Amino acid sequence: MKIAVDAMGGDYAPAVVVEGAVWAAREFDVPIILVGDKARIEDELKKHDRQGLPISVLHTSQVVGMEESPGQAIRRKKDSSIKVCFDLVKSGEASAVVSAGNSGAAMAAGIFVLKNLKWVERPAIAVIMPTKKDPVIVLDAGGNVDCKPIHLVQFALMGSVYARYILRKDVPKIGLLSNGEEEGKGNELTRETHEILKDSSFNYLNYVGYVEGRDIFAGDLDVVVCDGFVGNVVLKVTEGVAEAFTSMLKKEIMGSVPAKMGYLLAKGALEKVKKKVDYAEYGGAPLLGLDGIGIISHGASNAKAIKNAIRVAIECTKHKLNRHLLEELEKNQDLQKLCTRTPVGYAEEGT
Amino acid sequence: MKIAVDAMGGDYAPAVVVEGAVWAAREFDVPIILVGDKARIEDELKKHDRQGLPISVLHTSQVVGMEESPGQAIRRKKDSSIKVCFDLVKSGEASAVVSAGNSGAAMAAGIFVLKNLKWVERPAIAVIMPTKKDPVIVLDAGGNVDCKPIHLVQFALMGSVYARYILRKDVPKIGLLSNGEEEGKGNELTRETHEILKDSSFNYLNYVGYVEGRDIFAGDLDVVVCDGFVGNVVLKVTEGVAEAFTSMLKKEIMGSVPAKMGYLLAKGALEKVKKKVDYAEYGGAPLLGLDGIGIISHGASNAKAIKNAIRVAIECTKHKLNRHLLEELEKNQDLQKLCTRTPVGYAEEGT
Repeated sequence: MKIAVDAMGGDYAPAVVVEGAVWAAREFDVPIILVGDKARIEDELKKHDRQGLPISVLHTSQVVGMEESPGQAIRRKKDSSIKVCFDLVKSGEASAVVSAGNSGAAMAAGIFVLKNLKWVERPAIAVIMPTKKDPVIVLDAGGNVDCKPIHLVQFALMGSVYARYILRKDVPKIGLLSNGEEEGKGNELTRETHEILKDSSFNYLNYVGYVEGRDIFAGDLDVVVCDGFVGNVVLKVTEGVAEAFTSMLKKEIMGSVPAKMGYLLAKGALEKVKKKVDYAEYGGAPLLGLDGIGIISHGASNAKAIKNAIRVAIECTKHKLNRHLLEELEKNQDLQKLCTRTPVGYAEEGT
Repeated sequence: MKIAVDAMGGDYAPAVVVEGAVWAAREFDVPIILVGDKARIEDELKKHDRQGLPISVLHTSQVVGMEESPGQAIRRKKDSSIKVCFDLVKSGEASAVVSAGNSGAAMAAGIFVLKNLKWVERPAIAVIMPTKKDPVIVLDAGGNVDCKPIHLVQFALMGSVYARYILRKDVPKIGLLSNGEEEGKGNELTRETHEILKDSSFNYLNYVGYVEGRDIFAGDLDVVVCDGFVGNVVLKVTEGVAEAFTSMLKKEIMGSVPAKMGYLLAKGALEKVKKKVDYAEYGGAPLLGLDGIGIISHGASNAKAIKNAIRVAIECTKHKLNRHLLEELEKNQDLQKLCTRTPVGYAEEGT
């Protein structure tokens, strides 16, 4: 097993990416190929003790920026670090890719180079989110903005497999994100999807029905399914609320002496909660449904987030996640046949 | 000015509704008509000192439950408290309605009895949310799940007027909620809406373009526009994250003695922040676009939330909000003509 890491992807690349990769190579003892500008990567490597660590470097001349149109960039920049990472998986030289760069470009490169898994109309980004109890998987978290029922049904199937093998849930509970739990709720897309998923003859899937935005954080669900537009809103709103709450609390505390003293005493607890809701702890979200393993990480990833994204890549490889995805999708062919609407092409970002 | 209050609406009706109404009548010195089961309302009124307060009671024999289909319920229950409230506005006996009951039913009754304002395809629920700085208006927060560009354009116009008169912003900044700020982002609906709104010839509207979920809480926007499905998700996710964060913090704190002491000292600050993010402080969300004023309140409203919802009803009446809405919509006729797609009927809930 070798992991290809896009050394040029992310807000603090290549520095934190190289640091995270060195950390991962030491902690997990897995060979890593750092892909990108060789000179810059070597400069960063010099800052760390890489003695005896299984790290190699593969030079590429191009980088896809955060503002570039994903599809165009991938077609034009054949020697970009992200595309070459996927080439390594295609040729069998690497077993997975990790990137904190432009996530649309990672998705586009994945589809372009590896193609989709059989049965998959569109790959989805599966993000793990913290809750009051166990973490929950939310997908699609931004890959596909305009979806059809077939896509959401496949997201449910793929999310279920991911929860089984990565979160170790025997019978993952799956909810469909809606604007209320009652039958009459939902929009056109969720109503159609709900009709398909609730069919009781498909008992492979533990579908519990409509769930609301607040149910995500209660911790009673393992998988929450939605389209990528809504999933992105969920992710960003969560970040925004957590940040605003912390910032308001600090401001209020700094305005009073007893509160300031209290803060010093309670600081450890606040730090622990912040750590709990910290994306860096999870590190990576798989692009579920590619014929190969691709893990993306937050653009603002620090070294720890990169290290943990590499851990996710290792776990997905070890658990043969894609073989299980194929089995699940094949087992539920009838469910997919119920999706009457013709699937359309990939969203702009994914082409 | 008289305010009709749906005494039977909300999880704790009629007790907290009557309490909130008594509080409002005393604080704002405005006549209130409590609409619902007379015997139960009188029983609640006995618990308070209503001496000299301008409160009257109007008996109705029916109630719309939270689980009922809004459209059907309004058509069948002609003597329901919520429908009769709107009848009072229609006949001129009341100037506004306040209800904490089934919000779909309130919207349906509003449309059924009062009809829409001229120029308005669909009324929207406009919710005020706390941010790091000034509050922001998010609409639609749940009235219309499947929207067309014309609806979002009208939400932008109506939200702008609401921000001007109720939040006192001279030139409200309006953002369109999307999955990223770059031009290539968005789904079919937001891309079409963005094309229309960004047209520079319509300079009445201070449209700043795409905004993300986290921008809502930064406090640099006055109005955030989205469809009602997404708006509901935003609202519920916000509630869920704030609750999970507080609950995690308390749990962490109670596990350590110094943290417990710290909590006692910092408690005041935490309470202040909780108050800041508390919906009860804002209390009511107007159904913007009805030919009359209707304010809905959270189902879990306490007496303070009811009192504040009545305050919002008074402010909307005093500021002649609907006259200003009409003017703004009329002034921007050309903008609406740009919406090429034919508007469809109301969502299931609104009929």
